[in-house]
Amino acid sequence: MLTAHKIKIFQSLDKRKFRQKYNLFLVEGNKTIKEIPTSKFKIQEVFSVDPSALTLDAKASEISAAELKKISFLQNPKDSVAVCEILENIELPQTGVQLVLDGIQDPGNLGTIIRLADWFGISQIICSEDTADFYNPKVIQASMGSFLRVNIVYTDLELYLKKSTFDIIGTDMQGEDLYSYQFPEKFNLVLGNEGNGMRDTTEKFLTNRITIPRFGKSQSTESLNVAMSAGIILGQIFGKK
Amino acid sequence: MLTAHKIKIFQSLDKRKFRQKYNLFLVEGNKTIKEIPTSKFKIQEVFSVDPSALTLDAKASEISAAELKKISFLQNPKDSVAVCEILENIELPQTGVQLVLDGIQDPGNLGTIIRLADWFGISQIICSEDTADFYNPKVIQASMGSFLRVNIVYTDLELYLKKSTFDIIGTDMQGEDLYSYQFPEKFNLVLGNEGNGMRDTTEKFLTNRITIPRFGKSQSTESLNVAMSAGIILGQIFGKK
Repeated sequence: MLTAHKIKIFQSLDKRKFRQKYNLFLVEGNKTIKEIPTSKFKIQEVFSVDPSALTLDAKASEISAAELKKISFLQNPKDSVAVCEILENIELPQTGVQLVLDGIQDPGNLGTIIRLADWFGISQIICSEDTADFYNPKVIQASMGSFLRVNIVYTDLELYLKKSTFDIIGTDMQGEDLYSYQFPEKFNLVLGNEGNGMRDTTEKFLTNRITIPRFGKSQSTESLNVAMSAGIILGQIFGKK
Repeated sequence: MLTAHKIKIFQSLDKRKFRQKYNLFLVEGNKTIKEIPTSKFKIQEVFSVDPSALTLDAKASEISAAELKKISFLQNPKDSVAVCEILENIELPQTGVQLVLDGIQDPGNLGTIIRLADWFGISQIICSEDTADFYNPKVIQASMGSFLRVNIVYTDLELYLKKSTFDIIGTDMQGEDLYSYQFPEKFNLVLGNEGNGMRDTTEKFLTNRITIPRFGKSQSTESLNVAMSAGIILGQIFGKK
């Protein structure tokens, strides 16, 4: 049952502090909620304006549209909200391509990068501790269910990069042309912060540098958005395979 | 001078109706404003919290941070706002690759697509009449100055496609693999609406269909965002050239 107490807790879950306190995060929309049982995530409770539309083992409590509006973080709330448990932060062994995020701040960018990883079958994203929290409702929303299939770890990047035995590739204006570069089988692809790029303490670990060539005549120094750059690089890597 | 009357007019320019009535739109931020004189756009007036930081022929009127806040459409207003004139909707002859947008609705997506076109040196985007208005402040913002270098035309897509003499390429689940497909020298790449894809009346004009292969194991039907798909396709086309 959706008590006033629960509403208050759920409403606080847009803040990392409260997600950590209660060890909970919200997933919205039947489409994504239905995929949760096939993932490693556990549903604690589901609230739905139409529980019959959800075929889940977890029992969904029926709520009104007004109640849904209270607990949803969306401007236009969907059909259901699932309350899920936050998982332990566990690093899996590297199997192939791995994304390494050095301070990505925008939740939309993080969500888009998770969706890209899922599309290209990348199973793990390593994040610096100051990267946006992927349990943030905006990230969960932007990832469109892809967070269910990609392991996301927050760790000390310097320590991680120091012990990685695979190539560490980053973008650089003076790097090798993306289109002629031969990617190794296994590597880390580092993506830097939206405004400042990679930290020096990350950049020093790069073993290879690549450049996405610009074909336009613009003299502007404005570059592609970090998620778009990642998409173009991954598109190229997987196209060559 | 920034009169109360002008403030009222500028504040109305987030609505297409008023942009058309006054034939004006706003460009924010010194970085982009400084590039306007090198483009086909004309500045009518500039308001800045620090006119000395702008080196423009157009004289900038000094305003306070409070006044800037009143006329800016940004959550965190930058330094200056330029009032610019809306241009005539003119179709240029096709020279190479051209993007064709069939009902793209999200201003952020349109801005990102304009930025992509600029990056890849695509000089024109043809939009269906119901595509988001590129003079919308959110589009101008998301395009990061790229709207200055790409000609954007709104037209009757059916008429346009009927008379185009170049290939018309679109994405389709059953299309040819993007990575083996040989793109012609000159063509139109059609991008459909975020939710519904291309209209039937657009799709019937396609001469070629391509697919972006998915490498992940996800069974979800969730596809890549339209702007990301465009980025991956364009990255591939230009990489092969």
